[in-house]
Amino acid sequence: MTAITLEQAAQILREHDNYLVLMHKSPDGDAVGSAYALCRALRSIGKKANPLCGDEIPESYFFITDGFEIQDFAPEYIISVDLATADLLSGTAKDYADRIDLCIDHHGSNTGYAKLSAVDGKSPSCAEIIKKLIDVMGIKADREIADAIFTGVCTDTGCFKYSSVRPETHRIAADLMDCGARSAMICRLMFDSKSPAKLDMERRVLDTLEYAAGGKIAFICISREIMERSGATQGDTEGVASIPRQIEGVRVGITMKEKENGEYRFSVRADDDTDASEICRKFGGGGHRAAAGCSIYADSPEKAKDLMIAACIEAIGEDS
Amino acid sequence: MTAITLEQAAQILREHDNYLVLMHKSPDGDAVGSAYALCRALRSIGKKANPLCGDEIPESYFFITDGFEIQDFAPEYIISVDLATADLLSGTAKDYADRIDLCIDHHGSNTGYAKLSAVDGKSPSCAEIIKKLIDVMGIKADREIADAIFTGVCTDTGCFKYSSVRPETHRIAADLMDCGARSAMICRLMFDSKSPAKLDMERRVLDTLEYAAGGKIAFICISREIMERSGATQGDTEGVASIPRQIEGVRVGITMKEKENGEYRFSVRADDDTDASEICRKFGGGGHRAAAGCSIYADSPEKAKDLMIAACIEAIGEDS
Repeated sequence: MTAITLEQAAQILREHDNYLVLMHKSPDGDAVGSAYALCRALRSIGKKANPLCGDEIPESYFFITDGFEIQDFAPEYIISVDLATADLLSGTAKDYADRIDLCIDHHGSNTGYAKLSAVDGKSPSCAEIIKKLIDVMGIKADREIADAIFTGVCTDTGCFKYSSVRPETHRIAADLMDCGARSAMICRLMFDSKSPAKLDMERRVLDTLEYAAGGKIAFICISREIMERSGATQGDTEGVASIPRQIEGVRVGITMKEKENGEYRFSVRADDDTDASEICRKFGGGGHRAAAGCSIYADSPEKAKDLMIAACIEAIGEDS
Repeated sequence: MTAITLEQAAQILREHDNYLVLMHKSPDGDAVGSAYALCRALRSIGKKANPLCGDEIPESYFFITDGFEIQDFAPEYIISVDLATADLLSGTAKDYADRIDLCIDHHGSNTGYAKLSAVDGKSPSCAEIIKKLIDVMGIKADREIADAIFTGVCTDTGCFKYSSVRPETHRIAADLMDCGARSAMICRLMFDSKSPAKLDMERRVLDTLEYAAGGKIAFICISREIMERSGATQGDTEGVASIPRQIEGVRVGITMKEKENGEYRFSVRADDDTDASEICRKFGGGGHRAAAGCSIYADSPEKAKDLMIAACIEAIGEDS
């Protein structure tokens, strides 16, 4: 793996052709936005470029994917975007795992699987890097490119809320709006829109809310019964894990998801004084200080829950 | 009333002293942020300035109000911020309703109650105008001023989501972050934080969700029983009215709030093709196309609900 600058990446992209741009499995707004924006930018300078994702791209990104035709060519130069490790490729994209030429990513944990890597671990989104790259290449974003990049920028920052947001993130958003990005429509679709099934799932999950440690710990459960009764999809559960930690006074928010064969999957969110990854490591999991995950295998949901709550009580140093 | 430019307003603010800056009742982030930012800016150039609100300022704005001492002086020049009409003054602020010298506002519906008015109806927040005003005055925002303005900018745009957001809104956010505005902390407090009582109220309200017109109309009810059982405050109900309209496929979202003596207060939110204010005018209410309100007096919640749903079905031209 060789680290390269965006100027070097721009030079390489000008020299090659017939690009395939890979996305990770369960693609999110940043993966879809980055891949489509890069493909459109490359096409705008006369190159051939196709995006590829092993999984289906969720319908909610129709405004990025609609009207984008796949071109017929044999891929010559393989690029990955927003891909921390090649293990996150799925389906047909997996075939290219060992021959990725260039990786453009914002994960500090990027494993260096590509021949060349342009990684900025401080960038809140990969789309922000794509914007800088096409600026360096002298490509002006049209409305389609601006929409795609804006989608990545806003989804990976929780709509400009996260601590990863920098002044330049807002300046890039402004530039994209100048290029025609439909910011209100995109924000509404990404953040203020949910299916009846998702809302019903959330309603049922809220009914499972329990507090421990005098309100410093909050727990919710996404049972298989809730998933079946609401008709929600796995994608619908995205964001649910942030609910318990949003409650005032809560230091650790726990979301337990019932899987098969006695597996209970936990998402743990913690305040600044608590290390969620340390809690999850006790059960063989890991992650970041603020957000981590693990699985607990138990005879019953109650046992799994009690084990996790005990670990959280120990972590915050409180009696229950 | 005389309309003036920000340059003229800046000149006036330099010439006078002993300012009182009025906020509307039930002050929101834009009112509090605008008033405190303007007072701090005026103090930074050696003027005396106090904010005044007839109602108590909600605790959630402590990061703006903490450590700000009220100065002892007789008010000589009265300014209002974010105040569409003097009728929205309450308590001690009302005493100044007839003698407001300068109004700085972003409501197109501003009634022109002040001697001089600097109103920009296209500005998504009043705080954005305050930022431009202090720029014109050559005042550099310190962290406190930047925090206050950022709060107004983000709260009045739903965290940069609304269609009122312009490229310059993001550029102002970037500038404020450069001045030290704690954007992540403020966004988290304003948007990702709720009391246990508010969450419990929302959970109970979601249990009342009903659809009509094949899913094109969604209805929720905030009953007095729900308010009592959850222990939520009136302020906690803010934002709840946006829930039904966020559901995919819903064209009209109805929120009914049970008041006293047979009064049911409705908030109606509509899609681009439907006029919520027209629906509410049928019951003596009004508002904007996208969001409007009215009261219906009825013997029972069912009757009030049925009347409103019938009006909505008529408005969208669908059979129920």
